[in-house]
Amino acid sequence: MHVAMLFDVFGTCVDWRTSVTREVAAVAKAKGVTLDAAAFADAWRANYQPSMEVVRVGKRAYAPLDVLHRETLVTLCAQYGLRLSEAETDELNFAWHRLDPWRDTVAGLDRLRKRFILSPLSNGNVRLLVDMARRAKLPWDAVLSTEVFKAYKPQQQTYLGAAAMLGLPPEQVMMVAAHNSDLRHAQSHGLKTAFVARPTEYGPNQKIDLAPDGDWTFVARDFVHLAEMLGC
Amino acid sequence: MHVAMLFDVFGTCVDWRTSVTREVAAVAKAKGVTLDAAAFADAWRANYQPSMEVVRVGKRAYAPLDVLHRETLVTLCAQYGLRLSEAETDELNFAWHRLDPWRDTVAGLDRLRKRFILSPLSNGNVRLLVDMARRAKLPWDAVLSTEVFKAYKPQQQTYLGAAAMLGLPPEQVMMVAAHNSDLRHAQSHGLKTAFVARPTEYGPNQKIDLAPDGDWTFVARDFVHLAEMLGC
Repeated sequence: MHVAMLFDVFGTCVDWRTSVTREVAAVAKAKGVTLDAAAFADAWRANYQPSMEVVRVGKRAYAPLDVLHRETLVTLCAQYGLRLSEAETDELNFAWHRLDPWRDTVAGLDRLRKRFILSPLSNGNVRLLVDMARRAKLPWDAVLSTEVFKAYKPQQQTYLGAAAMLGLPPEQVMMVAAHNSDLRHAQSHGLKTAFVARPTEYGPNQKIDLAPDGDWTFVARDFVHLAEMLGC
Repeated sequence: MHVAMLFDVFGTCVDWRTSVTREVAAVAKAKGVTLDAAAFADAWRANYQPSMEVVRVGKRAYAPLDVLHRETLVTLCAQYGLRLSEAETDELNFAWHRLDPWRDTVAGLDRLRKRFILSPLSNGNVRLLVDMARRAKLPWDAVLSTEVFKAYKPQQQTYLGAAAMLGLPPEQVMMVAAHNSDLRHAQSHGLKTAFVARPTEYGPNQKIDLAPDGDWTFVARDFVHLAEMLGC
């Protein structure tokens, strides 16, 4: 049986698209700029993997996700004609610290925490995850950002490093994610896996990760269902 | 004003001597061995700094405190004639994961958390701190063990690394400790400081750290008093 559970955060625990879209729309409105805030949010997120990939392949020293997010934001503001001061840019960049949880997230985590050690394993940096957890009341026992390893998922030291820091062999750790690829990497390093579909993470026309496509240890409808499956 | 507070743990948040003495006494009784459990606990703690110093000076690769604690325990068991199996040794070693908080600790932290980000900055490894927090209900927002930096306090990368991971300049972080030396190092790296005396940490004959001996930002009787001083 597993002892600890690691959670992907963006998309799995929180609804980044709705939250970021809302903040972009508010800023645009305040600035008198007309734009498609959801498209802005999608474009921001679309540069997430490419911006981390430069770090993963060693072309750039590790930089926290806040820094990568901000660079993308500056580019997008120029493209969309949204003129922000440095302080306003920082403030909008921290929209990623203020993401709303899915409706089942907190209730499910509260139940799971009674039996298991819970931590995020997210590419979000520590401060981002701390701010998010304080606001959304995510009951983490630890905050294992991949920042701790100066790496980004799916680099193997993130999965194995998190298990090691919890003092556990990989098979006593379960990775929970709405993304099959994250689970595939976790599984390849010996972790248990749980898939929870988030079919609107990418909006109404989502095409990927609508269903499990691997041999995952558990497949649950949401976090409360996962807690039930695990007897919590 | 500071945004985050980092807490020394052993002695500052928890009463390691009473807790470890109790567990040693119980194991000795179960094994039919007569020994001075408080002296055993003191001897265990007395090797704390020497065991870390080997790592600090580079004579040994970083090893988590659980490993250092266990090596000392094995030596002490031989000295005291306490014969334990491997599993029994592991179990007693984890007495350090089960330390009781001082009476004001949880109430004070709960109040401080309303305004500040709270994290330990302890030489205890992540799993030790997580187990302790779950048992003692310490409301941490993050668990910044020095294990994250593969170093031990007072190495500078522990203080500065913790501030960096919280996304803060050192002057927006306050170190809280019952040990003047810990505060002196934190202050030398630009952190704010708060001293809380724990006059029975080392037992009834404690000679050190009975009073502040530096120019600390705050000096409080206990954590509840500190919360009051900070308007929480």
